[in-house]
Amino acid sequence: MKESEITKLREEVVHLLQSQDIPPARRTGQRFSPPSVHSKAEMAKLIDHTLLKPQATPEDIENLCQEARRFGFASVCVNPCYIPQCVDSLQRSGVKVCGVAGFPLGANLPQVKAREAKLAVDQGAQEVDMVMNIGALKSNDLLLLAQDMQAVLQATGPGIKVKVIIEAALLSDEEKVKACTVAQWVGADFVKTSTGFGPGGATVADVTLMRRTVGWEMGVKAAGGIRDFPTALQMVEAGANRIGTSSGVKIVG
Amino acid sequence: MKESEITKLREEVVHLLQSQDIPPARRTGQRFSPPSVHSKAEMAKLIDHTLLKPQATPEDIENLCQEARRFGFASVCVNPCYIPQCVDSLQRSGVKVCGVAGFPLGANLPQVKAREAKLAVDQGAQEVDMVMNIGALKSNDLLLLAQDMQAVLQATGPGIKVKVIIEAALLSDEEKVKACTVAQWVGADFVKTSTGFGPGGATVADVTLMRRTVGWEMGVKAAGGIRDFPTALQMVEAGANRIGTSSGVKIVG
Repeated sequence: MKESEITKLREEVVHLLQSQDIPPARRTGQRFSPPSVHSKAEMAKLIDHTLLKPQATPEDIENLCQEARRFGFASVCVNPCYIPQCVDSLQRSGVKVCGVAGFPLGANLPQVKAREAKLAVDQGAQEVDMVMNIGALKSNDLLLLAQDMQAVLQATGPGIKVKVIIEAALLSDEEKVKACTVAQWVGADFVKTSTGFGPGGATVADVTLMRRTVGWEMGVKAAGGIRDFPTALQMVEAGANRIGTSSGVKIVG
Repeated sequence: MKESEITKLREEVVHLLQSQDIPPARRTGQRFSPPSVHSKAEMAKLIDHTLLKPQATPEDIENLCQEARRFGFASVCVNPCYIPQCVDSLQRSGVKVCGVAGFPLGANLPQVKAREAKLAVDQGAQEVDMVMNIGALKSNDLLLLAQDMQAVLQATGPGIKVKVIIEAALLSDEEKVKACTVAQWVGADFVKTSTGFGPGGATVADVTLMRRTVGWEMGVKAAGGIRDFPTALQMVEAGANRIGTSSGVKIVG
């Protein structure tokens, strides 16, 4: 998309949200810089070490935590039922715990998504990756799209990083720009490309478009199908400042 | 599996549950008969007309409801955010509304799964398809497996049919028997093969094993990958008394 098209779409979305009494989020003043990655250790700091398979056991989760501690990953990203175990396992490690909410379909009631996120935080998660209501975007119901994100943001409160998964493989470029603009307007901390359970994962084109849309005042997380160092580096070069992958050990090992 | 192996496994599971103070569910006395299907109209009555894709829009859901009404399907099976719309659309149709909970991974906190199920019922759903905690089964934590199901059963209350999805493609035969036995013990109404989002769908072998395990005092729902009449009929002949499919119109049309 041309810069002018992105700008025009963003203006339309913001105008619509304002007309529907969705106020802009209070600015936190956070600003990201393009990460400089010259080593595997630097890459490790960007990685959300991820295990979301439904058949994962407590033993698998313990291995995940030990790997995250050993390699200095940013976080472990796990399903809700494993948050207490990860919080316990990762004490004094510097590795954060990231829980998911409304994952991976996002077609939940806002109050359930928010409750899931709040419980994650109550149990010690410092980050929450939520899936937006994709059908709401597809039917151009940006009010519902925004309110669903707001419910999670309000439930988690300040200091908790919320990443909004847009499942880019299901969206047109226009829809990607709209989704990212709404997420930024309501104050999400990151937009994230994919759940890893959809029809496609992160692409350089999507990361580039998402970064062009939101600038450097919010994060962009590339996730889905990133299985080696060169691919991870491509994502960083395209504008990602966080990488979600279940291949973290292979990438930095 | 031999009959004697199934019996032995069932006894072991029941013994374990009893020793952990999980009482058997109060018997409702419901008993199913093998359905006799000699026509497409008879097949229609067994079909949960399903649309769980995250990109489904209200318009898609309205089409689903109109099709269900026209063909006389058992229910529509939808994501939680679309239950009110379906309840509204299907008034005086005889078609039930089935919501999902903890779908499709099942690795949620029991209280969130239960809350999602309760809200579905409060909004008018008459059936709830929940995904069991697969990791709990994999680590042989049958207490957690049972308690997670019980949370949903208690939240939904009597009169609501609860189907427990075991995601058979991820399980060994022994695990399938264990999962079905636990679901039956705690009083679920159905066991269901698959979410449709896992690595495989319903198979004749799985339906047969599940029916042999639970007898005819509970339902067996075959779901995932059933796209034509002959396949649906195979599932019925193997012991299924409910069919979950997004191809209902093709199957009976």
